[in-house]
Amino acid sequence: MTTNEMWGGRFAQGPAAIMEEINASIDFDRRLYAQDIAASKVHAAMLAERGIISQADAAAISGGLDTIKAEIDQGKFTFSRKLEDIHMNVEARLKELIGDAAGRLHTARSRNDQLATDFRLWVRDAIDSLDARLVAFQRALVAKAATHAATVMPGFTHLQTAQPITFGHHLLAYVEMAARDRARFASTRACTNDSPLGSAALAGTSFPLDRDATARGLGFMRPMRNSLDGVSARDFALEFLSACAIMATHLSRLAEEIVLWSSPAFKFITLSDAFSTGSSIMPQKRNPDAAELVRAKCARVTGSLVTLLGVMKALPLAYAKDMQEDKEAVFDAADSVALALAAMTGMIGDLKVNEIAMRRVAGEGYSTATDIADWIVRVLKKPFREAHHITGRIVAMAEARGCGLADLTLKELQSVEPGIIADIQSVLSLDASVASRTSFGGTAPDRVREQVRYWQEQLK
Amino acid sequence: MTTNEMWGGRFAQGPAAIMEEINASIDFDRRLYAQDIAASKVHAAMLAERGIISQADAAAISGGLDTIKAEIDQGKFTFSRKLEDIHMNVEARLKELIGDAAGRLHTARSRNDQLATDFRLWVRDAIDSLDARLVAFQRALVAKAATHAATVMPGFTHLQTAQPITFGHHLLAYVEMAARDRARFASTRACTNDSPLGSAALAGTSFPLDRDATARGLGFMRPMRNSLDGVSARDFALEFLSACAIMATHLSRLAEEIVLWSSPAFKFITLSDAFSTGSSIMPQKRNPDAAELVRAKCARVTGSLVTLLGVMKALPLAYAKDMQEDKEAVFDAADSVALALAAMTGMIGDLKVNEIAMRRVAGEGYSTATDIADWIVRVLKKPFREAHHITGRIVAMAEARGCGLADLTLKELQSVEPGIIADIQSVLSLDASVASRTSFGGTAPDRVREQVRYWQEQLK
Amino acid sequence: MTTNEMWGGRFAQGPAAIMEEINASIDFDRRLYAQDIAASKVHAAMLAERGIISQADAAAISGGLDTIKAEIDQGKFTFSRKLEDIHMNVEARLKELIGDAAGRLHTARSRNDQLATDFRLWVRDAIDSLDARLVAFQRALVAKAATHAATVMPGFTHLQTAQPITFGHHLLAYVEMAARDRARFASTRACTNDSPLGSAALAGTSFPLDRDATARGLGFMRPMRNSLDGVSARDFALEFLSACAIMATHLSRLAEEIVLWSSPAFKFITLSDAFSTGSSIMPQKRNPDAAELVRAKCARVTGSLVTLLGVMKALPLAYAKDMQEDKEAVFDAADSVALALAAMTGMIGDLKVNEIAMRRVAGEGYSTATDIADWIVRVLKKPFREAHHITGRIVAMAEARGCGLADLTLKELQSVEPGIIADIQSVLSLDASVASRTSFGGTAPDRVREQVRYWQEQLK
Amino acid sequence: MTTNEMWGGRFAQGPAAIMEEINASIDFDRRLYAQDIAASKVHAAMLAERGIISQADAAAISGGLDTIKAEIDQGKFTFSRKLEDIHMNVEARLKELIGDAAGRLHTARSRNDQLATDFRLWVRDAIDSLDARLVAFQRALVAKAATHAATVMPGFTHLQTAQPITFGHHLLAYVEMAARDRARFASTRACTNDSPLGSAALAGTSFPLDRDATARGLGFMRPMRNSLDGVSARDFALEFLSACAIMATHLSRLAEEIVLWSSPAFKFITLSDAFSTGSSIMPQKRNPDAAELVRAKCARVTGSLVTLLGVMKALPLAYAKDMQEDKEAVFDAADSVALALAAMTGMIGDLKVNEIAMRRVAGEGYSTATDIADWIVRVLKKPFREAHHITGRIVAMAEARGCGLADLTLKELQSVEPGIIADIQSVLSLDASVASRTSFGGTAPDRVREQVRYWQEQLK
Repeated sequence: MTTNEMWGGRFAQGPAAIMEEINASIDFDRRLYAQDIAASKVHAAMLAERGIISQADAAAISGGLDTIKAEIDQGKFTFSRKLEDIHMNVEARLKELIGDAAGRLHTARSRNDQLATDFRLWVRDAIDSLDARLVAFQRALVAKAATHAATVMPGFTHLQTAQPITFGHHLLAYVEMAARDRARFASTRACTNDSPLGSAALAGTSFPLDRDATARGLGFMRPMRNSLDGVSARDFALEFLSACAIMATHLSRLAEEIVLWSSPAFKFITLSDAFSTGSSIMPQKRNPDAAELVRAKCARVTGSLVTLLGVMKALPLAYAKDMQEDKEAVFDAADSVALALAAMTGMIGDLKVNEIAMRRVAGEGYSTATDIADWIVRVLKKPFREAHHITGRIVAMAEARGCGLADLTLKELQSVEPGIIADIQSVLSLDASVASRTSFGGTAPDRVREQVRYWQEQLK
Repeated sequence: MTTNEMWGGRFAQGPAAIMEEINASIDFDRRLYAQDIAASKVHAAMLAERGIISQADAAAISGGLDTIKAEIDQGKFTFSRKLEDIHMNVEARLKELIGDAAGRLHTARSRNDQLATDFRLWVRDAIDSLDARLVAFQRALVAKAATHAATVMPGFTHLQTAQPITFGHHLLAYVEMAARDRARFASTRACTNDSPLGSAALAGTSFPLDRDATARGLGFMRPMRNSLDGVSARDFALEFLSACAIMATHLSRLAEEIVLWSSPAFKFITLSDAFSTGSSIMPQKRNPDAAELVRAKCARVTGSLVTLLGVMKALPLAYAKDMQEDKEAVFDAADSVALALAAMTGMIGDLKVNEIAMRRVAGEGYSTATDIADWIVRVLKKPFREAHHITGRIVAMAEARGCGLADLTLKELQSVEPGIIADIQSVLSLDASVASRTSFGGTAPDRVREQVRYWQEQLK
Repeated sequence: MTTNEMWGGRFAQGPAAIMEEINASIDFDRRLYAQDIAASKVHAAMLAERGIISQADAAAISGGLDTIKAEIDQGKFTFSRKLEDIHMNVEARLKELIGDAAGRLHTARSRNDQLATDFRLWVRDAIDSLDARLVAFQRALVAKAATHAATVMPGFTHLQTAQPITFGHHLLAYVEMAARDRARFASTRACTNDSPLGSAALAGTSFPLDRDATARGLGFMRPMRNSLDGVSARDFALEFLSACAIMATHLSRLAEEIVLWSSPAFKFITLSDAFSTGSSIMPQKRNPDAAELVRAKCARVTGSLVTLLGVMKALPLAYAKDMQEDKEAVFDAADSVALALAAMTGMIGDLKVNEIAMRRVAGEGYSTATDIADWIVRVLKKPFREAHHITGRIVAMAEARGCGLADLTLKELQSVEPGIIADIQSVLSLDASVASRTSFGGTAPDRVREQVRYWQEQLK
Repeated sequence: MTTNEMWGGRFAQGPAAIMEEINASIDFDRRLYAQDIAASKVHAAMLAERGIISQADAAAISGGLDTIKAEIDQGKFTFSRKLEDIHMNVEARLKELIGDAAGRLHTARSRNDQLATDFRLWVRDAIDSLDARLVAFQRALVAKAATHAATVMPGFTHLQTAQPITFGHHLLAYVEMAARDRARFASTRACTNDSPLGSAALAGTSFPLDRDATARGLGFMRPMRNSLDGVSARDFALEFLSACAIMATHLSRLAEEIVLWSSPAFKFITLSDAFSTGSSIMPQKRNPDAAELVRAKCARVTGSLVTLLGVMKALPLAYAKDMQEDKEAVFDAADSVALALAAMTGMIGDLKVNEIAMRRVAGEGYSTATDIADWIVRVLKKPFREAHHITGRIVAMAEARGCGLADLTLKELQSVEPGIIADIQSVLSLDASVASRTSFGGTAPDRVREQVRYWQEQLK
């Protein structure tokens, strides 16, 4: 296998071919076309408004850009690597369509501020799309939580049964995480939503621009206050990647749980056919491939964040070509989390719960031991540490007898601590334990239902 | 060299020693002592208020905790690895000081929510400290920018001279970045500032807690709505690390520029003795060690972020011991950026500018070529692309003559484009070029001074 | 809380204090003392041999260095931050001990090549220590595998039961990984084991050094061929961190399995008391804290690798102060994996296997379905894809009957595929399935025992 | 902009569409086709040899696979996402071509070992391609170093002039790094070059395979010893990514230097037109875009490494779908470094050196001060530390006079140290300094030429 076969024949021998290969960005920055055209239209309108170009030229430019937008939308546009990037591809086509007026579009502008503008618009759009997907994810969780507000499952620490909780309560924890993810994207949107347009190459321009007008026209909050910063800042992209990576950790945690819960050792849930892959030989098998891939995407998004943090490290102002590596990292992360959210929303919506298996494991491991200790504190007024110690001896007794805590007789309990009365037995069952956790945010079904209502209201 | 020598003799052979080595966290989580004690005091007061413990016990606990705080402040406290972590070290000492009442402090609480509370308080304090350092950094930049609002320097793209700018303008770009860093920390503070206290082990508790009161008492915005989320969430720490890492990229960019500017090839600035390391053999040498270390810290903070993203990936709810790795990553990142900010603030405040060297390089590379093109568009009303082309020919002529653009005669200019008039010569000097960039955010000294005033106002 | 309290009071206000704080490395590079002293002794002996210093001076230097080594070994040496690093701390003390002759030690040497030498020696020692730990880990695995060569457990894919395997076979997979980890460390050792000593600051020196002699004296393979490379290379450290990170993924996979296997849902194993943390309230609880921490360390080591890759990126030759960040990353990673190996070796050695639980899950999910398909191919000579299809129908029948594959009668089997004969029933049991996997590397107990013997021989 | 527009319309609403989107790998794993087909041919031949399938079937399979290979080579093959991956795409087409015999190919094999085999073959091929590129890179460096063995340039530490060196010496440092990169890839090749084929799904198989034969047939060293390890190991891919990332740090260091050297502040080199991007407006401008992109790729490759380390962390044996994320990370890294090597080789080969600018900066900063100190040690027999001190005073005198060291008179020198004689002046010039560094690996032109010859021999 020769080198060229290996790399798909794209690397020719000559310097020109290598340079085009490493330099051209059109293969990926074409995704910015809608933003690029929108920004150009606003820029041209402002130039005309300020008398920098004629209204007639502005109209021709606008019409030509609309045509190009339609051509790309419909897949009829031929992108050229020779023209390097989306900006030059669009401008070259514009010249074909409207002639010399096309050459006036780039007045008082540079590819540096043009690209920064396009990319901010794209990230802003991506955030809005992701927010909608996060809402859908939250709704799926809340709906399932409503059904299972009182379904008992083991609450794990260290993957050991610690205390019984409800499945609805567990799912709502992810609704909270998603809410913070949404807040993070909202902050990132605010960081992104300032306009670099008018920064020109790096120093601003001598043309009498109306930067407020172009900012407003593109839905930005305000023009950026420093032109060097306008073209060289990529912290909005880094913040976006961070928000994606953090959200991805949340999705990966749920993905891990889905993999565990659907394994034969747990059997807590059954994934729908749609979100499992089967095997013709083992028809009962439901491999949680989608959950595994969501779990893996978390690492992938971290990789993209590391890439861009590394690219931006120690880069002198204002523009350096290194920054061309920003887009693939952002696109790949946005695609990965969008897909992961869709898959996770589907999995949650479709999964079936095996209440019996959940309850069985919830009952193992003396999971109501804390309830005994708390009862001793509350009723017998012992210090917690002492109650803790007494409980330890009760559990040891149950273990020695090979029975559960609820199986111990009052006499047996009293042999450890004479003050114990029959009332204690009310806290030994799983349902009683769960129902007793009534502190705000606790797992008591009424509390869970309260939170379900809160979220249903929020997500209307 | 034996294994034990290699590792400093800390790894004994026995399982117990290995387990203590890997398990104990007191060597680093002792940094949480002030937060741990503050949270315990508020918790005890609330327990008494709700009648869960007596007022007398609460008073004894409070007094004992004050004593412990003073002991640690004064370096008189003996931390024990046997007691594993800060929580047990404090509680054990409390028992020595006040006896059995100490055993009532842990009522309706678990180390899981206690630690989450302490850690959030610590991160909140760290953010407040960092914000103060960011303000100091901004002030140093603005003060230097005020002095150099009209000092001409080369504006680089690709580290090639592109257009002349002013040094003040360049410095203000970093003020903008720092402002966004502050906004990021403010968002992170909001994400951090909810109270997990009362989540108990993971399920909430049956004691009639007043979670609003403890939240209020510790300055939190509100109690967290889900107890599982309360103990298992670490996105606040991830967001903090992200904000640190992004800020560190900004500092590393300035650090890189300081290294470049102080090299003999540039000679743009001279660092003060305080922020250089010398050499007894080369007394004129001023190695920019501090800047280099700031540059490197950026990678280190990225490393910490990667660590915690990796730790949290795919971790099932609620608590897992993996999460003990959260603190060292956060402490190290916070220390690194605090130190980097202090060093950078010092370097900026002290540095001397070599205006002659800056101006010399600013004048190289036909850096006012864009001004010609803009003049042609503005005065001769040619399309930008055509003006661009004419300018190219003018620059080629200057290059052929071996002179600068300002050295070309009107006749020579007219030989390329007959429409050119004497007025064009007004745009060919560095000062004229800089002064012409009057668009909002541009590098014109008046614009720079306007921004200096804006920031002086903001940073009052 | 003031800033100074927050950061432990170490950051004073003055530039000098900040500079010392960021610049001094003695807090961590003191770990190089043994290597630093060994290298200095060899250097001094060579200088004397070449007549560059006198034999008397060399003897005084050597004696003084021995004294310092003993002082540090015994904890009697006072390190000074003012003296910045280990090199200056040692040299200053040497001067106290032997006077002016100390000033001759640094002839034809620079801190740049001195540090590079020390650090390579340290990494080489660390590799040797880690290799010994890897051997211990392999031995623990092989010993346990020998006991469980025929213990049936479920072989998982996607955490779903796929085919029965043996626990011994499973453990031996980790022996293979560890063998490759050892090979990686051996490669890294070779990469590390060249001598930079004699590179001086960066350009070599005019003194008639014998670089072969110092290389030999320190156990290096050869002197490095390029002095710039000698002081600026850190790929040996990056390769070491990579080897640590890759090994850590292996340990984390086993750690994850230990967490799963010891959870109540699986109950495959019981960790020893020594490697569990208990709870006084739930005495049966055995939290696998050590395994969780091993799992987390994997992310931490990745963080260290990312740190150093980021530090070294785009660093011009030869030495830059950024490179001072290399040591903490390497020390932390080495400590983390050394500890993780020790803990894992202990856990494997001590764990108890619950054969009944393993066998139960191994029998679920029609895990011998592949055996049916293979039997049909082998005996009935059908193409595999057709056999696969027939098996699917057999499994569906068992599922419909609610029974296992071994419970189907011959008649029932023949109703799906008339060619089936009684012989097929010999492949339906777990033990028969496992025993049949006799291909080289397969899970058949005889094959597993063969591998156990192979490794016992290798690890003698 | 709706969600679907944003993501290019690929995400349909239905679960099936989401699942296909996340699950299918054919869009990227098609790059494995040559390896997949080669492995299938060897597998089929072995099956026939062992009598597991007929020779006629094996011949039909082999012929069909050849046809498919040709179809894909020629771009005539239609890949289907419904068929998920390269394996099923090939097998489905094989069935179309040769009918039922195609169904016998998968006997005693699983996609798990098939994929592991294909991927190892691909990585092995990639290593061989990269090694060839590394050799070309080394040759370009050595050729340039031969021309510039005596070209004086400043040797930098901290980007401050430290001592004069030669450009040839500097370039040879990268030849050394590349040599170690090649050694790393050779180690990785050895780690990769074991055969997992025959591991089947995870447990081995009951068919009487000849794993030695298939290993041999595919050029592997040996069959892997453990079937679980065979399908679950990805350390070869991690090691490959590490080797790529470490090499990328080397390329990024040289890229940084090229950016610096070609900036107007340095003017040390001129890149060829082929490897610069120009500007029609500033025709003299030569933006080092290719170097900047090489510099950035380093971060990108680190990102890929982080991705796969994160994916593999804590993954239980044997196969999990997460591992599907291995390929894109590896492909992207391999493409990035292949391209970076090609671009760097081209840049080095073409660049022009500006000897005057190099020499000018080399002479700044009293760069021969160390030579004075060494002379004092050598001739006056003073201890190095004392010589160091005397030199400091000489440099201070030159600085005070505003002259270079070579401009000081003997009398002036003797006013600092009376023992100094005229001979010292022989060490004060740049050329004398460089020529004196004759220690092995030093920068003396003869030493550099010696190394050039060594490498010319090695790279024949």
